[in-house]
Amino acid sequence: MKATLILAALGCTWCWGQTPDDCKPSVLNIPEAKYPCVYSDNRAMFRVVAPDAQKVTVRIGRGFDMTKGPDGVWSVTTTPLVVGFHYYSLQIDGATVADPSTMTYFGSGWQNSGIEIPEPADGDYYRAKDVPHGHVGQQWYYSKITGKWRRCFVYTPPDYGTNAKAKYPVLYLLHGWGEDETGWYTQGHVDFIMDNLIAAGKAKPMIIVMDNLNAVKPGESAALFAARGLVPAPGAAPAGGTPGAQAGRGAPAGGRGGGFNLSAFTDMMLTDLIPATERAYRVLPGPQNRAMAGLSMGGMQTFTTALNNLDKFAYLGGFSGSCGGRGGTFDPKTSCGGAFAEPAAFNKKVKLLFLGIGSAEGQGTKTFSEALTTAGIHNVYFESPGTAHEWLTWRRCLNDFAPRLFK
Amino acid sequence: MKATLILAALGCTWCWGQTPDDCKPSVLNIPEAKYPCVYSDNRAMFRVVAPDAQKVTVRIGRGFDMTKGPDGVWSVTTTPLVVGFHYYSLQIDGATVADPSTMTYFGSGWQNSGIEIPEPADGDYYRAKDVPHGHVGQQWYYSKITGKWRRCFVYTPPDYGTNAKAKYPVLYLLHGWGEDETGWYTQGHVDFIMDNLIAAGKAKPMIIVMDNLNAVKPGESAALFAARGLVPAPGAAPAGGTPGAQAGRGAPAGGRGGGFNLSAFTDMMLTDLIPATERAYRVLPGPQNRAMAGLSMGGMQTFTTALNNLDKFAYLGGFSGSCGGRGGTFDPKTSCGGAFAEPAAFNKKVKLLFLGIGSAEGQGTKTFSEALTTAGIHNVYFESPGTAHEWLTWRRCLNDFAPRLFK
Repeated sequence: MKATLILAALGCTWCWGQTPDDCKPSVLNIPEAKYPCVYSDNRAMFRVVAPDAQKVTVRIGRGFDMTKGPDGVWSVTTTPLVVGFHYYSLQIDGATVADPSTMTYFGSGWQNSGIEIPEPADGDYYRAKDVPHGHVGQQWYYSKITGKWRRCFVYTPPDYGTNAKAKYPVLYLLHGWGEDETGWYTQGHVDFIMDNLIAAGKAKPMIIVMDNLNAVKPGESAALFAARGLVPAPGAAPAGGTPGAQAGRGAPAGGRGGGFNLSAFTDMMLTDLIPATERAYRVLPGPQNRAMAGLSMGGMQTFTTALNNLDKFAYLGGFSGSCGGRGGTFDPKTSCGGAFAEPAAFNKKVKLLFLGIGSAEGQGTKTFSEALTTAGIHNVYFESPGTAHEWLTWRRCLNDFAPRLFK
Repeated sequence: MKATLILAALGCTWCWGQTPDDCKPSVLNIPEAKYPCVYSDNRAMFRVVAPDAQKVTVRIGRGFDMTKGPDGVWSVTTTPLVVGFHYYSLQIDGATVADPSTMTYFGSGWQNSGIEIPEPADGDYYRAKDVPHGHVGQQWYYSKITGKWRRCFVYTPPDYGTNAKAKYPVLYLLHGWGEDETGWYTQGHVDFIMDNLIAAGKAKPMIIVMDNLNAVKPGESAALFAARGLVPAPGAAPAGGTPGAQAGRGAPAGGRGGGFNLSAFTDMMLTDLIPATERAYRVLPGPQNRAMAGLSMGGMQTFTTALNNLDKFAYLGGFSGSCGGRGGTFDPKTSCGGAFAEPAAFNKKVKLLFLGIGSAEGQGTKTFSEALTTAGIHNVYFESPGTAHEWLTWRRCLNDFAPRLFK
């Protein structure tokens, strides 16, 4: 009874265990920003200063309308969110913008806000630990195919600098639709995942090249971002949407992949990226030392590129994206361009065909994996429990995929 | 007459030579975004989709109120802007946010929008050219002084990877107030500046370490960002401002530097950063192979750190920031902690004391340089014509400073 009175004196919101004291700032916030914060049950509280606005909404998968408080600050507490990294945006009187309280992350073709719903169960593998650290560096190279300078990021393992004569196998690793070459090291924590795997002796030291999958030849139109609305010119017809107005992290590959031209990237990769990498780094030669993987649209790109060039890649991975799994009937003789028509020959060339997916993304990838198995194609199916089409699924995919490479 | 009719038929705005046809998208825009754009006379046009807003303003140094068009898009054309890189923000019904049409840049403690007013006269030196390229990589290290993992970015010159036995001198290079370790390679183009200087034989190949100047010991308060308003907790007093509500690029060092605790960074640098760098890279030892420079508050930090440790640094540079030049009387015996009290001894230890400034920033630095010269202290004064307290000044400073190092 006495305790109850004390609790009441401390303020009723505290009593419910749901006050800001229990709400921890998201790790993706700008320095010292306390909001957005995440409760232990994965609800998030957002707060936005917009004193003269009429309507403010947080869009994180779905919309959550905010309420204006007496201090002029809008706030809302969401329902529990899925664990992992989420892009999100604010709508302020019709304008779609990033929340100024967080660092920004390139997705859906623009710099979104991000929030991380922590995942105590297995989150340790992608965090910085006291182990030797590799480097992620940016590498510029000129592309003859696109006629432009391009940037990729390259992970080199911890011993790359000291083991000065050693050569390494290479994984080419792609982001998804609307993202760019920063995705894997910023949202994906590729460096910590690999540092931890290598330190534990689980993965071979390897170089990882993270390029931008958007490649356009001179004269071709850059249609990749057309789905995201851009600000129209004066007098032009209004754009169909505003940045981020679509679902949280852009269109999934399953819905729109068919419209993309994936051949320019393949040409660019074979003509420019791989030679540039092999000039700049100490790289082991041959397909048995070259892997390719990607997420979502990057998985589609991986399968398009690698299945047509199996003399160059012996390992491939599709994380929530490949050449199958999006419905339709699988015909081993004709599907995926007929790449699986001769299982024995395929299995001899391809040392690993990896298909990963989040359990909340549906059964398509599992069905595809089973159809491949039935057709005699060796493959590995990995399912991330409880996650959707987002970066926690892909971090887990990489953590399972990388130890299987180059062995 | 005929021509006039044709021009009139094309629309009157076109006739003035000021239509979007003449307005080139800023190079800092997200892919395919046409706005903001920059006219040849350095005016910029901004356009923002905010159909239900009552008031929208672009803040770029000063505010420019936007006008809502019949298509629901707000727009404004500014007066001519100073050449170079500028942070900017939008105010939408009282909310200060980034423009979703640009990439974002960390300044004033949050992810601002950026616009680049091109500078045809000398802009080439910080652009990618067909020369050998060095790498910029992120390096994580654990700091005993702060008790935290820290990240810096490290530039290694083009021959670092192939010249496997060579050791290199090191420049430690700092950003300004409210910025972070990404500033020099993102806003500053440190990599292209150095690649071009090295290719031309103008600068020695060197390693450049770009750290975050914010360092706080356990138990100390992190007051560095206090000037920027953060979203207050429910029931708390409203914050003094909102992100970006101050002048375009945060408070200049001259105005607020005195309140900062610069000793924690010095301790961290000497205890953690320099040893971590010398473990991870092939580094030449001794002060004659170690330089330190920084911009604005980073210049103040440089002078604080280096002048108190002249046994460790033989080269130092302050770009729009140092221990002097902000008014007051210079006394060679006592100013800057008495570091200049014995000119002969100072000149013997310090091979380069570099003071850079933009011509639009006032006379203080020039006066300081002259006072040093009068006192017998060798120094180099560099003035960037026509630029203010912003990144074009600092790119030019680096371009002039780097060739003077390690010779």
